[in-house]
Amino acid sequence: MDLEARVHSEHPEALRLWLRLLTCTQLVEKCVRSRLRERFGTTLPRFDLMAQLERAPHGLKMNELSSRMMVTGGNVTGITDQLVSEGLVDRTTVAGDRRACRIRLTAKGRRMFREMALQHEEWIVGAFSPLTDREVTTLHRLLGKVKDHAGAVRSAA
Amino acid sequence: MDLEARVHSEHPEALRLWLRLLTCTQLVEKCVRSRLRERFGTTLPRFDLMAQLERAPHGLKMNELSSRMMVTGGNVTGITDQLVSEGLVDRTTVAGDRRACRIRLTAKGRRMFREMALQHEEWIVGAFSPLTDREVTTLHRLLGKVKDHAGAVRSAA
Repeated sequence: MDLEARVHSEHPEALRLWLRLLTCTQLVEKCVRSRLRERFGTTLPRFDLMAQLERAPHGLKMNELSSRMMVTGGNVTGITDQLVSEGLVDRTTVAGDRRACRIRLTAKGRRMFREMALQHEEWIVGAFSPLTDREVTTLHRLLGKVKDHAGAVRSAA
Repeated sequence: MDLEARVHSEHPEALRLWLRLLTCTQLVEKCVRSRLRERFGTTLPRFDLMAQLERAPHGLKMNELSSRMMVTGGNVTGITDQLVSEGLVDRTTVAGDRRACRIRLTAKGRRMFREMALQHEEWIVGAFSPLTDREVTTLHRLLGKVKDHAGAVRSAA
């Protein structure tokens, strides 16, 4: 089902652009989800959680991890339990605070994540392959204007 | 939390572009969600469901409605029940098939949706207001190339 099919011709260009942006994002995301499943038997929330940990060599507390997750809908506690049972992640206690534990990638988890991240990068490069280098730069710049504006509107709210 | 903060500088331009695309989409969507809530006390899945019905004057069966929803995570049956109880939507039986019912917007629902849709359009126009007309056209065209390519990859899979 194509979002853009919803736009009546009388709608402003901005609405057509928004639906195209949403369609593009959803198409690329669906592609990444299905490839993660086929290739690695994993899900986008699991990949996202491991990506957050990969960037935090000293580990993250559960609340930090939850707040950094970019994919909604995943159950952070449930995913963590799974990854621990698979030996990809471990829990360490924080000195001086027995109740707070930190979650870290294990060496095995780090190897597994790097392999997935390389593939993920290839998929993304493939998704944008119809664009020339110059078009990539233009798209990045124009989306930057939209992003800065939306960020400013949110901060002001 | 900014997705783009996750990108290491050694990553290819395409990955930076993808995270910017995702960030933009999420920022605009968050803005729409919070304004729908503040202004109309409603949610994006409810708005989405009403938008699908608005485009189907003869109504939709539940399975058609579910497959057309663009926002994931909403409970279509639950939302429909709510909207029926608020008089915004009704159920009619299909001639010759007593089990299948169609869902339609009521006149009240149609008025309410139109009011929300006009506001929604304004928010979207606002979100893209930092772009010139020419930049909107460029962005639309470049995203079109990405969309066509992603659509072709999906069809071939």
